Amino acid sequence: MELGSVTEQKSLLATISPGKRTRLRRLLFEFGPGNGTLLLLPIDQGIEHGPRDFFPNPASKDPEYQFRLAAEAGYSAIACQIGLATKYYPDYAGQVPLLLKVNAKTDVPPSDEALSTTNASVEDAVRLGADAVGYTLYVGSPRQDDDLHQLKTVREDCDRYGMPLVVWAYPRGSAIEQKGGRDSFYAIDYAARLAMEMGADVVKLNMPKLNPDKDKDAPAPYNELEVSQEEAIRQVVESAGRSLVVLSGGSKVDDDELLGQTRFIMEAGGSGVIYGRNVWQREWGQALEIIEQIKEIMLSSVSRIP
Amino acid sequence: MELGSVTEQKSLLATISPGKRTRLRRLLFEFGPGNGTLLLLPIDQGIEHGPRDFFPNPASKDPEYQFRLAAEAGYSAIACQIGLATKYYPDYAGQVPLLLKVNAKTDVPPSDEALSTTNASVEDAVRLGADAVGYTLYVGSPRQDDDLHQLKTVREDCDRYGMPLVVWAYPRGSAIEQKGGRDSFYAIDYAARLAMEMGADVVKLNMPKLNPDKDKDAPAPYNELEVSQEEAIRQVVESAGRSLVVLSGGSKVDDDELLGQTRFIMEAGGSGVIYGRNVWQREWGQALEIIEQIKEIMLSSVSRIP
Amino acid sequence: MELGSVTEQKSLLATISPGKRTRLRRLLFEFGPGNGTLLLLPIDQGIEHGPRDFFPNPASKDPEYQFRLAAEAGYSAIACQIGLATKYYPDYAGQVPLLLKVNAKTDVPPSDEALSTTNASVEDAVRLGADAVGYTLYVGSPRQDDDLHQLKTVREDCDRYGMPLVVWAYPRGSAIEQKGGRDSFYAIDYAARLAMEMGADVVKLNMPKLNPDKDKDAPAPYNELEVSQEEAIRQVVESAGRSLVVLSGGSKVDDDELLGQTRFIMEAGGSGVIYGRNVWQREWGQALEIIEQIKEIMLSSVSRIP
Amino acid sequence: MELGSVTEQKSLLATISPGKRTRLRRLLFEFGPGNGTLLLLPIDQGIEHGPRDFFPNPASKDPEYQFRLAAEAGYSAIACQIGLATKYYPDYAGQVPLLLKVNAKTDVPPSDEALSTTNASVEDAVRLGADAVGYTLYVGSPRQDDDLHQLKTVREDCDRYGMPLVVWAYPRGSAIEQKGGRDSFYAIDYAARLAMEMGADVVKLNMPKLNPDKDKDAPAPYNELEVSQEEAIRQVVESAGRSLVVLSGGSKVDDDELLGQTRFIMEAGGSGVIYGRNVWQREWGQALEIIEQIKEIMLSSVSRIP
Amino acid sequence: MELGSVTEQKSLLATISPGKRTRLRRLLFEFGPGNGTLLLLPIDQGIEHGPRDFFPNPASKDPEYQFRLAAEAGYSAIACQIGLATKYYPDYAGQVPLLLKVNAKTDVPPSDEALSTTNASVEDAVRLGADAVGYTLYVGSPRQDDDLHQLKTVREDCDRYGMPLVVWAYPRGSAIEQKGGRDSFYAIDYAARLAMEMGADVVKLNMPKLNPDKDKDAPAPYNELEVSQEEAIRQVVESAGRSLVVLSGGSKVDDDELLGQTRFIMEAGGSGVIYGRNVWQREWGQALEIIEQIKEIMLSSVSRIP
Repeated sequence: MELGSVTEQKSLLATISPGKRTRLRRLLFEFGPGNGTLLLLPIDQGIEHGPRDFFPNPASKDPEYQFRLAAEAGYSAIACQIGLATKYYPDYAGQVPLLLKVNAKTDVPPSDEALSTTNASVEDAVRLGADAVGYTLYVGSPRQDDDLHQLKTVREDCDRYGMPLVVWAYPRGSAIEQKGGRDSFYAIDYAARLAMEMGADVVKLNMPKLNPDKDKDAPAPYNELEVSQEEAIRQVVESAGRSLVVLSGGSKVDDDELLGQTRFIMEAGGSGVIYGRNVWQREWGQALEIIEQIKEIMLSSVSRIP
Repeated sequence: MELGSVTEQKSLLATISPGKRTRLRRLLFEFGPGNGTLLLLPIDQGIEHGPRDFFPNPASKDPEYQFRLAAEAGYSAIACQIGLATKYYPDYAGQVPLLLKVNAKTDVPPSDEALSTTNASVEDAVRLGADAVGYTLYVGSPRQDDDLHQLKTVREDCDRYGMPLVVWAYPRGSAIEQKGGRDSFYAIDYAARLAMEMGADVVKLNMPKLNPDKDKDAPAPYNELEVSQEEAIRQVVESAGRSLVVLSGGSKVDDDELLGQTRFIMEAGGSGVIYGRNVWQREWGQALEIIEQIKEIMLSSVSRIP
Repeated sequence: MELGSVTEQKSLLATISPGKRTRLRRLLFEFGPGNGTLLLLPIDQGIEHGPRDFFPNPASKDPEYQFRLAAEAGYSAIACQIGLATKYYPDYAGQVPLLLKVNAKTDVPPSDEALSTTNASVEDAVRLGADAVGYTLYVGSPRQDDDLHQLKTVREDCDRYGMPLVVWAYPRGSAIEQKGGRDSFYAIDYAARLAMEMGADVVKLNMPKLNPDKDKDAPAPYNELEVSQEEAIRQVVESAGRSLVVLSGGSKVDDDELLGQTRFIMEAGGSGVIYGRNVWQREWGQALEIIEQIKEIMLSSVSRIP
Repeated sequence: MELGSVTEQKSLLATISPGKRTRLRRLLFEFGPGNGTLLLLPIDQGIEHGPRDFFPNPASKDPEYQFRLAAEAGYSAIACQIGLATKYYPDYAGQVPLLLKVNAKTDVPPSDEALSTTNASVEDAVRLGADAVGYTLYVGSPRQDDDLHQLKTVREDCDRYGMPLVVWAYPRGSAIEQKGGRDSFYAIDYAARLAMEMGADVVKLNMPKLNPDKDKDAPAPYNELEVSQEEAIRQVVESAGRSLVVLSGGSKVDDDELLGQTRFIMEAGGSGVIYGRNVWQREWGQALEIIEQIKEIMLSSVSRIP
Repeated sequence: MELGSVTEQKSLLATISPGKRTRLRRLLFEFGPGNGTLLLLPIDQGIEHGPRDFFPNPASKDPEYQFRLAAEAGYSAIACQIGLATKYYPDYAGQVPLLLKVNAKTDVPPSDEALSTTNASVEDAVRLGADAVGYTLYVGSPRQDDDLHQLKTVREDCDRYGMPLVVWAYPRGSAIEQKGGRDSFYAIDYAARLAMEMGADVVKLNMPKLNPDKDKDAPAPYNELEVSQEEAIRQVVESAGRSLVVLSGGSKVDDDELLGQTRFIMEAGGSGVIYGRNVWQREWGQALEIIEQIKEIMLSSVSRIP
């Protein structure tokens, strides 16, 4: 037996239910770049960080900004919480798919025992015409018992309603910090696999960061691996198996870095990117421009068909 | 694209369900000032602080006092808990709208890990003929996991029954105290946004207080902002987006301050005020008088139409 | 507007549902003194303290003693838990109303974080033919979040079934001890109001105790009030609003004190007394005798009509 | 009024529902000694202690041993958990009544905060043809809040299905150890009363142990009582009221002690004994022999008719 | 009475419901060795340990590897979590039975208070065509209260749907470490019995390890037993009673040890083995080869018929 390379993997779409397929195809082929990749716009920072992220571009404080951007620039979907979905999405219904995030927390208390409880349901998503549901899983948190159990209900409801499940898989908590940290290859790789095994159709990950100093606290063999970042991403994508992987940019970086990273991700087998602050912290025109460039890269450097 | 100013924002009423619209219009246009603003009378201090708030005006200990005041002086709604709603509201049914608060706690234990659990349901509100439901959310409390999850049910039931949801968004808990305190611009701004994103139709906030000494412990850019209080209120109102904002007066202040502050709030885009002790700690005649003055200001200085 | 004195307050019976009215009238007018007052016999000490309270009068260990006493001496109701209600009440069904207490705890662990969970339901009370339900609320306990939320269900079920709700409102927990203690005027006054606001039809309170030394730790203005005990009781009764107030005697005192206190309570606006150990720790004949004397006082010194 | 002695107490059977009566009569009159007493065989040590109790008699490790013993020697019932009830009871169905214990825990962690959660339901008991349900209540444990609340559901289901409820009332937890210990007269007496008040039809207790040294830490009057062990048992039986009391032998003692204690219990008003290790840690023939002797005593020394 | 030896025990299949029998027979007689033994392939290491276990054989990172191996080499069943069952099992449906594990946790936080919450349900298993359900029970963990209670629902659902229940019985937590450790004979023996008593049809255990130094901390008589490992396994199998026992290999060992151990297990009365890393950390050809050898031993050395 010869197991094929990643790009030859069986299609995710072929393995999921008709409801999930219908909705996910919309994101992959009818919106965004349209070539089977995902370009997601997250606007949940108002909850996760508070309004401070809007100061670099005050216009971005009005949720209209992100909704209009997602619709006009042609994103695959806009990801937000119930309040924005209810009050701002209606005007854009049908113009850009909705990815309803169903759990959240503020960053006011420390994240040693991070847990993000649900504030909305998959049924809310169905009612609002959403095409996907998002869940934040804190991988390795001391409260993972509650987290994994809570995810059960969301996952089951996604199965019931044929709703694609996107898992934000974030290593968190005091234990992970002692094993190399939340951004280590070990942590991100574990997160990718866990999310897939818990039933994610799409896994959202942060970029793994190589840090020899901290990595030596990770369990073997991670403590002595010597991999390039490109290789790390490739492995992380493999760990997610048939689940699609989208990587995020985090806080704002310069254009070259952003575009380079995008190419990097796509070539490593990623299915897309999720760019929030890197886009909407720019003025309108500049935001449209960078999105255009990102999409060009996404159209030219796909290495995996979902 | 040019995003309009706050006063040009899309109407909240245009985005909410028929049930919510019907009920909220009652508060905004049929009762109180009647020009689309909100003048709310809270009588939950008996739970939140105990009877001590009634001593300055002993007549206020009898809930009849507040109910009759709300009805005769023409408030937009009276906000109270289940016990008062059940035993005192019936005589005033139809004379002043009821805003049923569904969670509460005493202030006997310290508020380091504040959580206010529900003691009534949205269904109770429907049964009692209420026109809105109130929920106290402790923004940033270490127990926000339970809080946000509990709010989910209340919000969902509000959606189900077409009941406007008013969120008392109060920063609380040890973590917020280390980042500038519960009344800081940072904290109130975060609270405004969080409440809106969790599905509040109306957000009740305390006045942000500028305190350069403590504000430097807040996250950037709040730690180095130099804003006037008026600007702080304006920003807070913006952070709440399409949700209406009402601000409270807190403990009793003198008339000039109270009226000045009312004008201030209305001009900064607030949709109304919620005045309890500042009103019912006065004798009957004086209470009626100050309410009249408050309403005049509210009628003359609106800057935002819901 | 002139708000009337306490005795002119609107009747509680006029504000409650038909089911509650039917049942509560039985306690107020068909049993016990029969003049709208309440004489309650509690037999829950076996749970709350263990059998030690039965030693002064060994006959009292057999629950028959209290049930027969309640029926023959003519109490308004007997208050007990599910076990006694199931195994001993049937023989007295119709002879004395049953007040089923639905939560309890032992006093073995310390009460720093007191919480009394339910061991029976309002439906049990309906099935057993009870005329009221009792709930112990630990006012100010660090676990008030669970307590108030648990009370929600009991209160809702009482509303559903038309069952009068009697709340034992007991200040408890480490926090209240630091603010003057569980028996302080501050604590009892808060308890009275909280119970009423949570939906109690009847509030059971312990006698407030004035203790200048400890009272100065209470919040203002309680820390500097100079009130007589009679005045304290009167205020507590007012704080409970339309809810009826019954006060308890606690551990056994001598006859003069007991009778004096009864008169005191009735004149201060109390709706009745709840006397357990003070009665059933006496021998049969003596118990009947003191009950007769108590009832005489209750018949002669009413200052409030429910 | 003259309250009768214990033996003249009203019959338990006369006070319980038809379903409970039918089933309990089976244990009392159709199986075991058959004269209204209870001889119970517990085989839950495999969970509560692990297999270590089986080493003295290796044959006892196979549950067949206890089931066959219970059936052939004529026990009133065999008490076990769901696993044994499902896999071993079917062969003995109808030959010996089943008492299904619905909660359990291992003794691996310390019992400072003992709580035994349910692993089976009353409905399981009904399905399996059981004639009674057993529940272990840890009297005075810091987690009594969860315990009493959990018992509520079991008790309610027993009422619903007419299933007799046997409560293993075990004083446990750090607090009880500071008040004389789990085996003190104070603790056992409290346990007897609590179980009865929580709705037990039968209370299973350990033998109270008099220990003047530790007893002085118990609350008054237990700290200064001078009672014989016989008197202690008699009082404990009285504290349980109409509930039947069965006492256990604990770890294996010699024959004379076992038989003497049996007579002791029966004469003090106990309704029976529950002997596990004392019986099945013997070889088959010896086990049958001692059971015969126990039954003879039970038949000859009853002082209470249920 | 003479109790037979282990091999003469009553058949498990004769005692279980038609649904369980139908499904379990598939594993025992239609797949795998086919002679009533169980050869299980677990692929849950990606969750329990993270992807680190896949590095020795990179091909094993793709779940296809294990599924294809299980199907082609003829395993009795493949055990995995919901994500793999949903995305990878469909291609192998009918080719190898599915054992759906319904709870899991990562090993990032320490296991002092281990608890593995459910992420899938028995209904998921039914829907996916699974023939068994797996549950990990942490025997002796301080959180056993939650664990045993959670297992109740899974066990009840297995009874309801006729689904065989396989319990991974793992001693864990600080308390067990103080009594000889998680791999001690004491711990494993307790685990075997507990799982059986909780309703397991099959118990999965780790190999007991004799360690005189640590064993002396175990409760009597384990602290002074002198048993061979073979005898320990035999006893553990007996402790599980009618439940079938499968033992695991743990981390990879050399071929001789693996095969020797397999024979050992089968001769001691085990019903099978569960080999994961020992098999799929080998290259394809070698994996097939060792499986062949394992099956030969299983076919030749059975000592117990289920």
